[in-house]
Amino acid sequence: MVFTETGTEIALHAGTSCSSGTCGAGIAQNPVQSLTPEDQRMLAAFRPETVEAAVKKTIETYKLFSYTDKILVACSGGKDSTVILHMLKKFGYAIEAITVNAHIGCYTDENLRNLREMCAKIDVKLHEISFRKEFGKSLCYIQSILKAKGYDYKNCHTCGVLRRYLLNKYSKPLHPDVIVTGHNLDDEAQAVMMNLFRGNLQVCARIGPKTGMVHDSKTDHNSATKKKFVQRVKPLYFVRESDVVKYSKLHNFPVYYGECPCSSDTYRREMKDMFKSFGEQRDEVKEHIIKSFISISEPLKAHFMQAEGGAIQECLICGEPSSKDICNTCALLAKLRDNKIIKS
Amino acid sequence: MVFTETGTEIALHAGTSCSSGTCGAGIAQNPVQSLTPEDQRMLAAFRPETVEAAVKKTIETYKLFSYTDKILVACSGGKDSTVILHMLKKFGYAIEAITVNAHIGCYTDENLRNLREMCAKIDVKLHEISFRKEFGKSLCYIQSILKAKGYDYKNCHTCGVLRRYLLNKYSKPLHPDVIVTGHNLDDEAQAVMMNLFRGNLQVCARIGPKTGMVHDSKTDHNSATKKKFVQRVKPLYFVRESDVVKYSKLHNFPVYYGECPCSSDTYRREMKDMFKSFGEQRDEVKEHIIKSFISISEPLKAHFMQAEGGAIQECLICGEPSSKDICNTCALLAKLRDNKIIKS
Repeated sequence: MVFTETGTEIALHAGTSCSSGTCGAGIAQNPVQSLTPEDQRMLAAFRPETVEAAVKKTIETYKLFSYTDKILVACSGGKDSTVILHMLKKFGYAIEAITVNAHIGCYTDENLRNLREMCAKIDVKLHEISFRKEFGKSLCYIQSILKAKGYDYKNCHTCGVLRRYLLNKYSKPLHPDVIVTGHNLDDEAQAVMMNLFRGNLQVCARIGPKTGMVHDSKTDHNSATKKKFVQRVKPLYFVRESDVVKYSKLHNFPVYYGECPCSSDTYRREMKDMFKSFGEQRDEVKEHIIKSFISISEPLKAHFMQAEGGAIQECLICGEPSSKDICNTCALLAKLRDNKIIKS
Repeated sequence: MVFTETGTEIALHAGTSCSSGTCGAGIAQNPVQSLTPEDQRMLAAFRPETVEAAVKKTIETYKLFSYTDKILVACSGGKDSTVILHMLKKFGYAIEAITVNAHIGCYTDENLRNLREMCAKIDVKLHEISFRKEFGKSLCYIQSILKAKGYDYKNCHTCGVLRRYLLNKYSKPLHPDVIVTGHNLDDEAQAVMMNLFRGNLQVCARIGPKTGMVHDSKTDHNSATKKKFVQRVKPLYFVRESDVVKYSKLHNFPVYYGECPCSSDTYRREMKDMFKSFGEQRDEVKEHIIKSFISISEPLKAHFMQAEGGAIQECLICGEPSSKDICNTCALLAKLRDNKIIKS
């Protein structure tokens, strides 16, 4: 992707050709034939019902949602959200899907095609939101503008902030009871480590499959801001990424398994490499981290509430937990508004 | 090192030749000349008084010991214990040194020579304990016997258990008020990560510069066993390993900077590599981990005490915190007694 001096965007990597060359040649026309001998060996011993049982247990134990709730599944077209979309439909929940297209060349084009195919196949309504339709620009272009203005935000940060912003904006009129995201055990263990290594242990106190603005009478001192948000839940919280991949491959879901070509600059990648370095112990290590922190989340919450004078410090604008008055997300949104990239 | 079928030990790597070939050629006769240009650049910006101030602050903040206490410094001859030995002498504390020789070829020979030189130079009494004198065998030989019996303990585990056992046995008649160890920030951050990754968060609740059997009226339900131990303290707790190296090199202490040739089999090495992979952020990451866990150690202690019915679970034999009735240390000591390697 390049942009001219006058700011006219030329989306060189739209369609199937990609300037980065990192997002692969797309999924096979017949996914069954794309299973490698290694995939077949891996899948031979895999029991999908074990993963489904773990997801059901998480939904029940943490009371994530019920059969009378309207559930909106935030989908990227990737393996995680596709797997949870399929499972929730299979379990009989009332679901709709919502996706935000950041226009990252053929990577997001392919993901969107896959998601449309999946939703059509299992008869789930899909709500599509687009960076280009909303902002008139793709993620890469927005990043270029920010960089030219002297703001050096990482791709994943800007992308995440804008996706959450749009997800929140467009989910509200749909009145869902919860938004489901596809975060798995690996994502969460990486997030805990990132926060621990950065000294943000306060954030780790709020981990668990039920995040976002949960009503809590003890901390609900700014319920006005909290009502702006729909509660987010993570039914794949205790499912290993490797099991998500197996589940997806076993079902031949239309999924591209490569990573986002823009994610090369993230701390999260270092966390992934760190866990990989533990070899066969890596899954056990991730489970220990998550279970350890969940086991101490209550005393940690109480501790940080006391330290902060009765409540965990939250962003004055959005009410999310934050170590500063204005969280990083709201700070970036303010900069994007100042620079007329977003309007409201 | 080899041993014959009849069990006669032949210490091939005693003296200056070493069968492993990994413990280097020894320190230079004149350490001043051994400083590399890189060392000199590194030391140019280093301020030893900053490290000394950090150590003084730790001693005062955590009330580790006073000027009227008899302080025994557990020394290996390595950089950490040599640095703290020097500092405590410089600060005017009443110190003696104690060392346990595991007879790991020329590595421990060299360390012992260095330690004797250091103690003579700063006029500190040195108490020497020897595996061979105590058990009639070196660490390698003890490991061989254990392996032949089917026990596959790692070198560092067996070495650590036996060193603590001897340190405790021979320090008691000296009646010290505290035993000082040379653990630095890196050692402690590695230990926290090892426990977190293994799911032993309970152990992390007791971190801090003051460890061992601290009298605590709330938990002191087995004070008889606790009195067996002398309190151990770690004045270098908040000092980075890189600063310990700089302090030692700046003072030209007689120190060999290589690692123990027997430590190649440890999980701790993986932790070191993990931190190294964080590049320039590695020191900040370690500080965040330690400060984060110290900040939550009180609520964690309270939480685990409540979970365990009023007290942190401790080894029934030695009283150290343990997730099992008998801790790993006491279990190994029992095996060594069963096999007549140690007598009492």
